[in-house]
Amino acid sequence: PLCLCWALGPAAAAAATNILLLLMDDMGWGDLGAFGEPSKETPNLDQMAAEGMLFLDFYTANPLCSPSRAALLTGRLPVRNGFYTTNGHARNAYTPQDIVGGIPDSEILLPELLKKAGYTNKIIGKWHLGHQPQFHPLRHGFDEWFGSPNCHFGPYDNRERPNIPVYRDWEMVGRYYEDFKIDLKTGEANLTQLYLQEALDFISKQQANQQPFFLYWAIDATHAPVYASKQFLGTSQRGLYGDAVREIDDSVGKILKHLQQLGISENTFVFFTSDNGAALISAPKQGGSNGPFLCGKQTTFEGGMREPAIAWWPGHIPAGGVSHQLGSVMDLFSTSLSLAGLQPPSDRQIDGIDLLPVILQGKLIDRPIFYYRGNELMAVRAGLYKAHYWTWSNSWEEHSKGIDFCPGQSVAGVTTHTQEEHTYLPLLFHLGRDPGEKYPLSFASEEYQEAVERLSGLVQQHKASLVPGQPQLNVCDQAVMNWSPPGCEKLGKCLKAPQSDPQKCSWPH
Amino acid sequence: PLCLCWALGPAAAAAATNILLLLMDDMGWGDLGAFGEPSKETPNLDQMAAEGMLFLDFYTANPLCSPSRAALLTGRLPVRNGFYTTNGHARNAYTPQDIVGGIPDSEILLPELLKKAGYTNKIIGKWHLGHQPQFHPLRHGFDEWFGSPNCHFGPYDNRERPNIPVYRDWEMVGRYYEDFKIDLKTGEANLTQLYLQEALDFISKQQANQQPFFLYWAIDATHAPVYASKQFLGTSQRGLYGDAVREIDDSVGKILKHLQQLGISENTFVFFTSDNGAALISAPKQGGSNGPFLCGKQTTFEGGMREPAIAWWPGHIPAGGVSHQLGSVMDLFSTSLSLAGLQPPSDRQIDGIDLLPVILQGKLIDRPIFYYRGNELMAVRAGLYKAHYWTWSNSWEEHSKGIDFCPGQSVAGVTTHTQEEHTYLPLLFHLGRDPGEKYPLSFASEEYQEAVERLSGLVQQHKASLVPGQPQLNVCDQAVMNWSPPGCEKLGKCLKAPQSDPQKCSWPH
Repeated sequence: PLCLCWALGPAAAAAATNILLLLMDDMGWGDLGAFGEPSKETPNLDQMAAEGMLFLDFYTANPLCSPSRAALLTGRLPVRNGFYTTNGHARNAYTPQDIVGGIPDSEILLPELLKKAGYTNKIIGKWHLGHQPQFHPLRHGFDEWFGSPNCHFGPYDNRERPNIPVYRDWEMVGRYYEDFKIDLKTGEANLTQLYLQEALDFISKQQANQQPFFLYWAIDATHAPVYASKQFLGTSQRGLYGDAVREIDDSVGKILKHLQQLGISENTFVFFTSDNGAALISAPKQGGSNGPFLCGKQTTFEGGMREPAIAWWPGHIPAGGVSHQLGSVMDLFSTSLSLAGLQPPSDRQIDGIDLLPVILQGKLIDRPIFYYRGNELMAVRAGLYKAHYWTWSNSWEEHSKGIDFCPGQSVAGVTTHTQEEHTYLPLLFHLGRDPGEKYPLSFASEEYQEAVERLSGLVQQHKASLVPGQPQLNVCDQAVMNWSPPGCEKLGKCLKAPQSDPQKCSWPH
Repeated sequence: PLCLCWALGPAAAAAATNILLLLMDDMGWGDLGAFGEPSKETPNLDQMAAEGMLFLDFYTANPLCSPSRAALLTGRLPVRNGFYTTNGHARNAYTPQDIVGGIPDSEILLPELLKKAGYTNKIIGKWHLGHQPQFHPLRHGFDEWFGSPNCHFGPYDNRERPNIPVYRDWEMVGRYYEDFKIDLKTGEANLTQLYLQEALDFISKQQANQQPFFLYWAIDATHAPVYASKQFLGTSQRGLYGDAVREIDDSVGKILKHLQQLGISENTFVFFTSDNGAALISAPKQGGSNGPFLCGKQTTFEGGMREPAIAWWPGHIPAGGVSHQLGSVMDLFSTSLSLAGLQPPSDRQIDGIDLLPVILQGKLIDRPIFYYRGNELMAVRAGLYKAHYWTWSNSWEEHSKGIDFCPGQSVAGVTTHTQEEHTYLPLLFHLGRDPGEKYPLSFASEEYQEAVERLSGLVQQHKASLVPGQPQLNVCDQAVMNWSPPGCEKLGKCLKAPQSDPQKCSWPH
């Protein structure tokens, strides 16, 4: 049974705190000026940090986008909510067009709960929790949607593979590369401007209606193929990737200013973060920076999972705060519920914690961070210690083809190209002295023994109570691709699906 | 002939701008919160940056301490002022105890010029421009000194090698590990507190006397063996190195506050920077961080030569400024002269430029940065492009013994362990898109050809007019070590020098 606190009608609802989550795609810890990006081109985000609280030790729940987003919206690790695969050991998986699975009905998403407290919920941008009808965001608590179920890959030929649809609410309104242009040569696309306008309009509408809102702004300009609007192209020292960051920075500035101009900034909790580390494999043109950290997206090193994070709530969060709280995207679930005066579901394990005591009172809550890759717990962090129980960058086979998640970086015995088990003698790092995970502690040291004892205790405890969810990312079928999304008839954009041919999805890393 | 503008006596002198250079030792670009250090433990320096101007593209003139300091004080590249060796090709050299050479009398140092404009000049901390009597800082323009001629290595047995002396003005007042304790086991030493007190006292005295001052605060707590005072030990997430940084940060805060309390902050130009990149070979316990940059001290990659830099001058420098001006420690020579209303010497090549237009009016001056290692021009930067004409990390022989200037980093064809010449086809990087020097541009691209043409033109121009100075770092002799520094008699600390036996110094990297 769920325990819920109900809002008491429009008057009470009007006083409820709006929630605005700004979720970036493949943006790295080192991509903002406030986090040491050497071009320092993010004045609005840096200002947001200066007015709010900077989180230096904030993590995603998975080094890949779909599982990370599923974790954010459910407050639960992907291994619980089903966003993982058992087709191979420790494999990253997501929701490409041919994925059969998606977010299970049994999972309770943040907007489902907020809705019951009178919130209007909107997702702008990438959903990525499954594109079959039963996974539609409006079936999982959102009231409105403008965006896409998948990444903006393409263009496709609409025969082997359809172009990705863009939805407004229940129906598609066009497809990428057809109705929503992305010029792969120049990197030009005006999508961030569309997403910005959607956000401003939604906020205005909610303010006019005196209704609290949850806005999940999940834009994707920094995911390859990276794009920016014409007026931002060529404006960054960093090239196209930097142009995209600059446009996002500008947009965030406009959104925050809009809240201030509407007089609701003190009634709106804003949190900025990213879904996983920068995709170094696409760098430098199509990928960002993980600052001083090791490797990137796809890995459970710090570069794959430590995220830029900023909380902003004028009048509530003291300006200029810096927190070393170990945080997680899953905490945004619990924190949002807390803001709405709701309790998290009590019938299941929730991995997120309520960060309000951290944000408002500067408390530090002792909790571990678990680093999963697919079905395997690769590493755990508590305090400043991180123990790797498994290491793997990617296979030699892939690496020899130039697929490199750690370009220019190589730490002997750490960035391994075979899956290495360290269960009995974990690789231990002190992330304060060694944020780059370059100097494993000596197995023989007292420090090693004490830290590993504590960390392994946490792992044991975690594993003992873990009930893995039904894996959703095992089966792929070309028939389930976005051939004929709802609304395609009106647009004359329905395509014929090929025959169903379910296969085990192939997850090479 | 020198062109000098003379100050007109005490009244005019009182109005002259004080100059305070805070020069760190082996501190890296990534060691301050404002530059993205993930523990963010430098609130005073971050505040200094917020109130002043942050330089993101500021360089040393050499990836090693002595040549860097000689360049700072002369405004000239080490290859001109003699702070290099010709014992081997592209070898780093400095002033160990047995070095015979030092700063030539023919070089004009910043304090020599400032003195003529009525400044009182003090050096606190490490001199490092030679320890024989003719190289004494008080013979080169300084009026006062508290500190040491060499690094605080030791302890020595006073037979094979004497302990390093600490001077007050003309005479030694003790030796490291004897009278000035450094506990190598705990890392405890109160030297930074002594240097802080010296600075505060000197500033107070100058203020009381209404005399303008140049204070060169060249402290060395972040150079291995790293040390901190008892009250800072164990206070940093980063371990001992971080403790040292925290003590320095605290000290800088106290110095700036002192200026404010004396009412002279608006009349004192303060600049904070470091002598070379973090010594990654000593990391993590004894070395810092170069943030997202490649390699460290000893190399001409960005990690070896890009420095943290902050200018602070309340009432003159607009708060919160960020500059992409390519700057150099040699600019501190020219900028200081400009602040004092002096002209640089006209009888010699000065490599520094006056940064005041940059700092006060936000101008950007187009100028190259030359990356030297010993007698070789390894690389050049102009705008965002950097071309490597030679690459070398260190030799295979050294590397195989565990001497690694790029731990955990390895870029094929870039971090080479043989000296590789690229004169005819330089390795080109775009430091905006690729600050980490991981992705050389394609030789075939138009971008490559245009950029290399420009950079190679600059190199040609530079080399055509270059007159190398007499190399000062070629000869070593055990007889010249600090056996009997002036003042040793009073202390009973004179040691017997062995017979003179001049040798070519050995510079392995």
